[in-house]
Amino acid sequence: MEETKVVLTEKEMPKQWYNIMADMPNPPAPPLHPGTRQPVGPDDLSPIFPMSLIMQEVSTERWIDIPEEVMQVYSLWRPSPLYRARRLEKALGTPAKIYYKHEGLNPTGSHKPNTSVPQAYYNKQAGIKRIATETGAGQWGSAMSFAGAFFGLDVTVYMVKVSYNQKPYRRIAMETWGGKVFASPSENTNTGRAALAANPDNPGSLGLAISEAVEDAATHSDTNYALGSVLNHVCHHQTIIGLEAMEQFKKIGEYPDVIFAACGGGSNLAGVSFPFMRDKINGRDIRIVAVEPTSCPTLTKGEFRYDFGDTAQMTPLMMMYTLGHNFIPPGDHAGGLRYHADSPIICQLYKDGLIDAIAYPQTKIFDAAMTFARTEGIIPAPESSHAIKGAIDEALKAKEEGKEKTIFFNLSGHGIFDLAAYDEYNNGRMKDTVFDPEAMKVALAELPVI
Amino acid sequence: MEETKVVLTEKEMPKQWYNIMADMPNPPAPPLHPGTRQPVGPDDLSPIFPMSLIMQEVSTERWIDIPEEVMQVYSLWRPSPLYRARRLEKALGTPAKIYYKHEGLNPTGSHKPNTSVPQAYYNKQAGIKRIATETGAGQWGSAMSFAGAFFGLDVTVYMVKVSYNQKPYRRIAMETWGGKVFASPSENTNTGRAALAANPDNPGSLGLAISEAVEDAATHSDTNYALGSVLNHVCHHQTIIGLEAMEQFKKIGEYPDVIFAACGGGSNLAGVSFPFMRDKINGRDIRIVAVEPTSCPTLTKGEFRYDFGDTAQMTPLMMMYTLGHNFIPPGDHAGGLRYHADSPIICQLYKDGLIDAIAYPQTKIFDAAMTFARTEGIIPAPESSHAIKGAIDEALKAKEEGKEKTIFFNLSGHGIFDLAAYDEYNNGRMKDTVFDPEAMKVALAELPVI
Repeated sequence: MEETKVVLTEKEMPKQWYNIMADMPNPPAPPLHPGTRQPVGPDDLSPIFPMSLIMQEVSTERWIDIPEEVMQVYSLWRPSPLYRARRLEKALGTPAKIYYKHEGLNPTGSHKPNTSVPQAYYNKQAGIKRIATETGAGQWGSAMSFAGAFFGLDVTVYMVKVSYNQKPYRRIAMETWGGKVFASPSENTNTGRAALAANPDNPGSLGLAISEAVEDAATHSDTNYALGSVLNHVCHHQTIIGLEAMEQFKKIGEYPDVIFAACGGGSNLAGVSFPFMRDKINGRDIRIVAVEPTSCPTLTKGEFRYDFGDTAQMTPLMMMYTLGHNFIPPGDHAGGLRYHADSPIICQLYKDGLIDAIAYPQTKIFDAAMTFARTEGIIPAPESSHAIKGAIDEALKAKEEGKEKTIFFNLSGHGIFDLAAYDEYNNGRMKDTVFDPEAMKVALAELPVI
Repeated sequence: MEETKVVLTEKEMPKQWYNIMADMPNPPAPPLHPGTRQPVGPDDLSPIFPMSLIMQEVSTERWIDIPEEVMQVYSLWRPSPLYRARRLEKALGTPAKIYYKHEGLNPTGSHKPNTSVPQAYYNKQAGIKRIATETGAGQWGSAMSFAGAFFGLDVTVYMVKVSYNQKPYRRIAMETWGGKVFASPSENTNTGRAALAANPDNPGSLGLAISEAVEDAATHSDTNYALGSVLNHVCHHQTIIGLEAMEQFKKIGEYPDVIFAACGGGSNLAGVSFPFMRDKINGRDIRIVAVEPTSCPTLTKGEFRYDFGDTAQMTPLMMMYTLGHNFIPPGDHAGGLRYHADSPIICQLYKDGLIDAIAYPQTKIFDAAMTFARTEGIIPAPESSHAIKGAIDEALKAKEEGKEKTIFFNLSGHGIFDLAAYDEYNNGRMKDTVFDPEAMKVALAELPVI
């Protein structure tokens, strides 16, 4: 019988995360303080992050030891299998080999716990009692609530009000893991109260929810803040995906020619590709492709400049490809990819030509998702389906050219929480949304010139 | 690091299912034709089942080869890991070791594809083009739609109308895998049309949906029927769970003292326990416990006698512990356990004292589910939580007695489709339902005396 999965034992799980800062030809420009516009130092971050994570944020050491307690929680679902997509290959009639890493096999259904678990651990070690964080559709809030349960850490989640009302399942999952979930804007914070005073029906936004979580953390000494993407330490934690994949490819004597990953804030792309990027920097011939929605085309259409991470301008300024923090992307179903910029590391690598980027409209993404669901059996998350679409197009190109090729992508999560989007697609009600370059220009014009 | 999971490679996956009919001290009484009351022969079943499955249904051969094509689909998620529930043990402070098999790691989230996949395969082999089946909450309909996709088989699902309207997510999942889902009663069948004529607002029932599916299959020569539990061949297919577990226990030099499994129709209990039951029949000291809801206490309160499998009296009469096919259990959240009887094999083994049975009310089940979610991280299905409750109580008893003990249970699925039930529980709105022994007496009085 032909094998479908390459598995590793827990003993074979990598014991260190990889920090690409040690190998980048050009390091990212330093983040700047939102007030002084001077480079941010560790002390600026200490009111909301533990020093251990701040040190990881600025570290240039290549390897970071994964604490034993984190390994023990990882072992609940890691190492994750590397799949050979034999049924998909057959359906496409391609000579290419398609592999994917399946990060949807943990109880939260996405790759996010790879970083929520160590973040919970380091905060607990630092004596922190509670984490405040935000969530849009609920994926990150789920991962943080899940992680909090293992370390006896309280978790407060500010969930964008419109999602809180429309997506009760994610809220219930967070509560089942012990998270306290508030519709944002809430009565808990000055930011929230002011927003409600101005408009009691304010539907909320991710920017507002971030501001509430940061305020909550900054004003309570026993409470810290946690972020699910963009930051360096988040990218480091996610490299467990790519490090495992390297071991798995080694086991079968293969190496990918090209890697596809969806890119929202960038931690998913970072996680699966950075260990391979190290080889690329050292001369190996491999293509690494970020796939984004045409409705929020940060890498393919954004400008490379300093911008804030949030709409409220509370975070440091970071050097990123950005559409402007006031740009509001259309309401596509891949909510995890609706961020106005990307991780500064990812942006620098893209700038240096080490990452390629492509963009697709959402109906094309769901065409690919459907092909995948009916061949591989897994209903993929809309975000992950961007990587699937990239891989399918590459496999069809290989077929045209009659080339054998090894294609690898990250299935960052399953789509069981996204079935309403599939219903729209199945019934022909899904439409492609349109990116408005004028709106981007307006948003970019509002940025400080640095 | 202490290992959490015992994993098998695909090469180590069992290549045969186990048929307990070869080893039972007393075989189950033969099923009887609903009209003639004579033992049913293969020809009676051939209008709705392929001969290969009918032969498995009546076989007394100990081992049944798993076809290569089925193994290939199984490999998408099998072998499933055997978990050591270290965090749960610690939380309970028990000297007992608790192990569980995790059957929720496939895209449908339950153990059902272990039999839907071979059923789809054998029907395809027999030249069948379409499967008609019923589903209550949607678990079996999902598994059948999923399986149909791999073998190019059309799947028609009659979904109880009240669930169709209340649980759109399961319907959408079925449709995404290619299933055609109809609210039952439907306009497709005489049974459905008659029900709608009598009452256009008929909310449907599992009994009615079975009748529609059987009629659809019986009246179309290219269409067969498929059932997700109760029947012998379904129990055989599910033994892949227990066979893998035996290999996994062997790897770590352990053997369970007691096994817990939820029991609805019985295939889950059969699947995890029958390979161990063989050892028990041969003299090994092991306890096998069926866990059921107090609201539908088939083994603990039912009568052992001939009854129909469905409310419409279309199926053969089977010798079972039954509450009467007209008994309507309260609307507990563990929909998969709301069946009026159990697999004839399970019932015979219970009659012979080889299986124990216990029953719990649903709030106790959810207490256990919550403990599990916050220690092991997995939100379990309400059905599976019956096994968890049994295991937790056993572990606490072991603690009281200061006994080391090896406890094993089957986690038959995750609870992501059941979050509405968790919301009820989390908000203190969940109530225990009450079993009505008088209603059972009435239902039993209506049964034919055979």
